[in-house]
Amino acid sequence: MSSSLPGLSSGRVEAFSDGVMAIAITLLILDVKVPIAEEGGLTRALAHQWPSYAAYAVTFLVIGIMWVNHHFLFDRVEAVTRGLLYLNLLLLMGIAFLPFPTALLAEYLREDANSHIAAAVYSATMVAIGVGFVALWWHLTRHPELLEADTDVAVAQVAMRRSMVGPVVYGATIALAFVSAPACLVVYGLMALYFMVFRVRAPAPQTSAS
Amino acid sequence: MSSSLPGLSSGRVEAFSDGVMAIAITLLILDVKVPIAEEGGLTRALAHQWPSYAAYAVTFLVIGIMWVNHHFLFDRVEAVTRGLLYLNLLLLMGIAFLPFPTALLAEYLREDANSHIAAAVYSATMVAIGVGFVALWWHLTRHPELLEADTDVAVAQVAMRRSMVGPVVYGATIALAFVSAPACLVVYGLMALYFMVFRVRAPAPQTSAS
Amino acid sequence: MSSSLPGLSSGRVEAFSDGVMAIAITLLILDVKVPIAEEGGLTRALAHQWPSYAAYAVTFLVIGIMWVNHHFLFDRVEAVTRGLLYLNLLLLMGIAFLPFPTALLAEYLREDANSHIAAAVYSATMVAIGVGFVALWWHLTRHPELLEADTDVAVAQVAMRRSMVGPVVYGATIALAFVSAPACLVVYGLMALYFMVFRVRAPAPQTSAS
Amino acid sequence: MSSSLPGLSSGRVEAFSDGVMAIAITLLILDVKVPIAEEGGLTRALAHQWPSYAAYAVTFLVIGIMWVNHHFLFDRVEAVTRGLLYLNLLLLMGIAFLPFPTALLAEYLREDANSHIAAAVYSATMVAIGVGFVALWWHLTRHPELLEADTDVAVAQVAMRRSMVGPVVYGATIALAFVSAPACLVVYGLMALYFMVFRVRAPAPQTSAS
Repeated sequence: MSSSLPGLSSGRVEAFSDGVMAIAITLLILDVKVPIAEEGGLTRALAHQWPSYAAYAVTFLVIGIMWVNHHFLFDRVEAVTRGLLYLNLLLLMGIAFLPFPTALLAEYLREDANSHIAAAVYSATMVAIGVGFVALWWHLTRHPELLEADTDVAVAQVAMRRSMVGPVVYGATIALAFVSAPACLVVYGLMALYFMVFRVRAPAPQTSAS
Repeated sequence: MSSSLPGLSSGRVEAFSDGVMAIAITLLILDVKVPIAEEGGLTRALAHQWPSYAAYAVTFLVIGIMWVNHHFLFDRVEAVTRGLLYLNLLLLMGIAFLPFPTALLAEYLREDANSHIAAAVYSATMVAIGVGFVALWWHLTRHPELLEADTDVAVAQVAMRRSMVGPVVYGATIALAFVSAPACLVVYGLMALYFMVFRVRAPAPQTSAS
Repeated sequence: MSSSLPGLSSGRVEAFSDGVMAIAITLLILDVKVPIAEEGGLTRALAHQWPSYAAYAVTFLVIGIMWVNHHFLFDRVEAVTRGLLYLNLLLLMGIAFLPFPTALLAEYLREDANSHIAAAVYSATMVAIGVGFVALWWHLTRHPELLEADTDVAVAQVAMRRSMVGPVVYGATIALAFVSAPACLVVYGLMALYFMVFRVRAPAPQTSAS
Repeated sequence: MSSSLPGLSSGRVEAFSDGVMAIAITLLILDVKVPIAEEGGLTRALAHQWPSYAAYAVTFLVIGIMWVNHHFLFDRVEAVTRGLLYLNLLLLMGIAFLPFPTALLAEYLREDANSHIAAAVYSATMVAIGVGFVALWWHLTRHPELLEADTDVAVAQVAMRRSMVGPVVYGATIALAFVSAPACLVVYGLMALYFMVFRVRAPAPQTSAS
């Protein structure tokens, strides 16, 4: 295993990243608060906080997809360099930040002006994370020596181009945020489903052996 | 290892699922709050919040059993497909949601009308999780090529039928919730013990080698 | 690997237990709250909550030692049975409960009557956990077939007898709690150091190969 | 594998340490609170709490670097002794404590006298963690038999000397804290970048095989 960072195998970085993503996804429930209700009013109080459940479900799927994409990337990586480690840490900083815009959106979804800001913050966070994925793939296209022996650089190039869909679509939802925050939440959910159904598949070049 | 999702071995999905379940089970204690008591009144204040301890203990056992059942399932899986991954993510979304109905039930167990709603929400969450397990086993009966080489499809069929006990019994507790919430809590605990004692055992077909 | 619970190796149970203990130990900091202080009063406010830091440090060491003891036990285990799994889950339920008595003790340490109750609750939790360790070792002395091939049943018997120190000493601190809660905190810390220095060592029988 | 602590391999200690660091880094977001804002005032309310975002980003990088340094150290370790385990537990106690000074600094950064205290507490925590790293390397220089076969004791000596930069610089920020707390935050961030760019590299002696 050639490696410019002794003591940091790809597997180790993956395990740490997995830990961060598993924790972030599970912490989401802490922002679904037990409502205060007077006797007989619990059904109404629970129904009232539907944005919390919607935000929980959507961000859960979103982080789940990110976890799949992250693995897809690191399983193509043979050696970890300082640059890759650095970019990955910034990516994780974005993913671990997600519980905050999720809680923000849940809190302000039914307000007027504030809902637009909250959705825009969520969208901006998603753009930042999306850029992080593009940057990681870009780094691999520039340093093909970091790739697994059976992985052609074309795989990284295709993946980089595909990963640009994220920042573009999420960037567009920043504009959408100022029209309708609930519409943004729907788009986030649809994007998660899109990645689930279309993106998570075997890439064309490669997969002969493996 | 044949796999329609390169880069996602069964072991990886298990490790991520383990992380989510370990975190969810440990977060439960955050909802057992330090009571506010005046000087000399701590014993009474601690006793007053007995539903918190009961809910903690029951849900801890419940998630513990789910962890066992989850392993039992994934140790039979050889290859991970998009469908399996998707179903597993939905299952985890349900399990990671459990701290919320647990806290809800603890908060409202001693009230009247609200206690029924809180218990019904807990039961409904358990039904959803139970359906998730049935769906995963059903997927394996329909795609026996995903199973380990030494695992007969009959194992998955038996396991699917057995896993239907969950949604049925928990579904019945939705009705029970409107009679008595504490009775529901007792049934949840008994169900956990039932799964512990009777379900977690070597299945009939298979176990020759392994 | 003979195993009465297919799909649950000793390593898997250890990994899940490690996760729960790592999370419980790290959650402790959530109960060290940022104090509310007026301008210029932060030093005083920080000093005022010294019980929080003391409780954090002591429980951190306590869980750290438990982690070591838990590994020492499971590394002697070859096969996981339903009984072992059940006892381990109850043990984890006790360990994951520790953030609650820790926060309770920190909150009430400087009060009078309430401090005694809080310390007694902490001690009782430690007794329960200690009994859990004794029960696990006892189970292994009764089922030596679960032990690793190179481990003599005498190892389990010695370890079981040694582990009884825990419940006995912590049991005595329940009485001490009604004399002085700060004294209890000191004893918990000293016990952790005692286990660290004297208990965590190579046992007499065995260690020839390994 | 020679080991004075049977049942505790270097890999196990690393996995537990990884877990603690991954959880600590992900818990940081819990201290970025959703602000309370009146209709139309969310942008202002979000901007007002910029110290929370800055403290989140800096401590995230800080723990990220610590994770890298921790791995670099333990990958040189062959056998775990009581002393090493003890020192590592104290180090983790410091790292897991970081969410507290982070939240403290975010809360009081814009105040006057209190900001100095908050920054000093953060700096002192960093000094303690830095001393922990020095102590671990020092332990390895005194017990070279704990090192991997291919690792010369000179590696540990060089690493120990390099790791002294931490306590010295962070010690100096205790003085800086009483001049300007925001300046401290900037220095913490720059230190993280310094370690990222200059420290995380292949050490001179060794790396022939590996």
